[in-house]
Amino acid sequence: MTETNTRLGIIIFPGFALLDVAGPMQFFNQLSLIQPFELSIIAKTLEPVTTVPSKSLGPPTQFQPIGEQWLPTHTFDTAPLLDILLVPGGYGLRDQTIFDDIALFIKKQYPNLKYLLSVCTGATTIAATGLLDGRRATSNKFAWSFATHHQNVNWIREARWVVDGNIWTSSGVAAGMDMTYAFISTVYSSEIAKDIANRMEYEPHTDPNWDPFSQMWKD
Amino acid sequence: MTETNTRLGIIIFPGFALLDVAGPMQFFNQLSLIQPFELSIIAKTLEPVTTVPSKSLGPPTQFQPIGEQWLPTHTFDTAPLLDILLVPGGYGLRDQTIFDDIALFIKKQYPNLKYLLSVCTGATTIAATGLLDGRRATSNKFAWSFATHHQNVNWIREARWVVDGNIWTSSGVAAGMDMTYAFISTVYSSEIAKDIANRMEYEPHTDPNWDPFSQMWKD
Repeated sequence: MTETNTRLGIIIFPGFALLDVAGPMQFFNQLSLIQPFELSIIAKTLEPVTTVPSKSLGPPTQFQPIGEQWLPTHTFDTAPLLDILLVPGGYGLRDQTIFDDIALFIKKQYPNLKYLLSVCTGATTIAATGLLDGRRATSNKFAWSFATHHQNVNWIREARWVVDGNIWTSSGVAAGMDMTYAFISTVYSSEIAKDIANRMEYEPHTDPNWDPFSQMWKD
Repeated sequence: MTETNTRLGIIIFPGFALLDVAGPMQFFNQLSLIQPFELSIIAKTLEPVTTVPSKSLGPPTQFQPIGEQWLPTHTFDTAPLLDILLVPGGYGLRDQTIFDDIALFIKKQYPNLKYLLSVCTGATTIAATGLLDGRRATSNKFAWSFATHHQNVNWIREARWVVDGNIWTSSGVAAGMDMTYAFISTVYSSEIAKDIANRMEYEPHTDPNWDPFSQMWKD
């Protein structure tokens, strides 16, 4: 994947989980110094997108949650054909319209994708397309019953991340960083992945079966 | 810190390191569900701010680096008085004007701050204000000689993070998450910090002296 620009896309939506995107992207931002990348940040419109979910979707709270706003570069309609697509999770996915828009976009992109990656409940939108039917995948352990309601998938509960074919799915939030480390090790080289992680001062979990959180959360 | 809204500010600038901000903010975003917060995202102007440093500042590369754009909520002039200020690092700090603007803002805010936090080379801007003179602090290990050029600070090389009075400084990029975990444990409670980390599926380093990267990078 070094001859031409690798077209990387990430989806954002109101109520995405910040670290689901930012963890993997810290790796890819650094990788882009030594490999040619083009990044598309894709949303429904070009308006700024907040990490704060609308009140009806988020967890119950007596306070106004804080969050950050990101700027998309493309809409679902204007995004180019991608090589790699990263789908994050977050409370925003509990909005059926948001969920359906994302699933539709994944379905449209998949035939051209070299790799499809998800973090956290992002796997749920991939499952809804049918692309994971009969395949192994994992998702967020704190939101397991929401995440795994699509039944035709072989959901692996105890896993930091799972690879099946060209679909990589990780467990919740911080697990996306470990999946990305493994992804870069596999697709580029372990030396490149190690060098990026060392510059980030990040110690990755390198065992895909390491998962204390699968025991911790029993929903 | 639970009676009124805690006013949290983060500084962003062109070429900030994404995870320096997003790692700590994933914790604070979740904390804001159970504690009242107001967040100010502070930059020189209200224009979108990119993580990509200008070509003359970034590391040598033959490619165009990719990055993300965040929207500020306040400028250095319009930001409210803050309780907690978080200063990230990144290649953008090698622009002297950016650096000086940030140092000036820190100096203005410090008398009212309850806590001042930095990640990565953010400590360098605090050092420039003189606020760290005679105090202990740490910074990024990959950029140690840039980060520690201010001589009056007792720079601690082998440290994941350092606390001196109300100033918390962490090592590079990913270390900001471990500092934030320790900060929330100390200022709120260890139960709250643990619960947030478990929902993030993040296993923190809880020993401030854990630092394999201080041996790895010898610049």
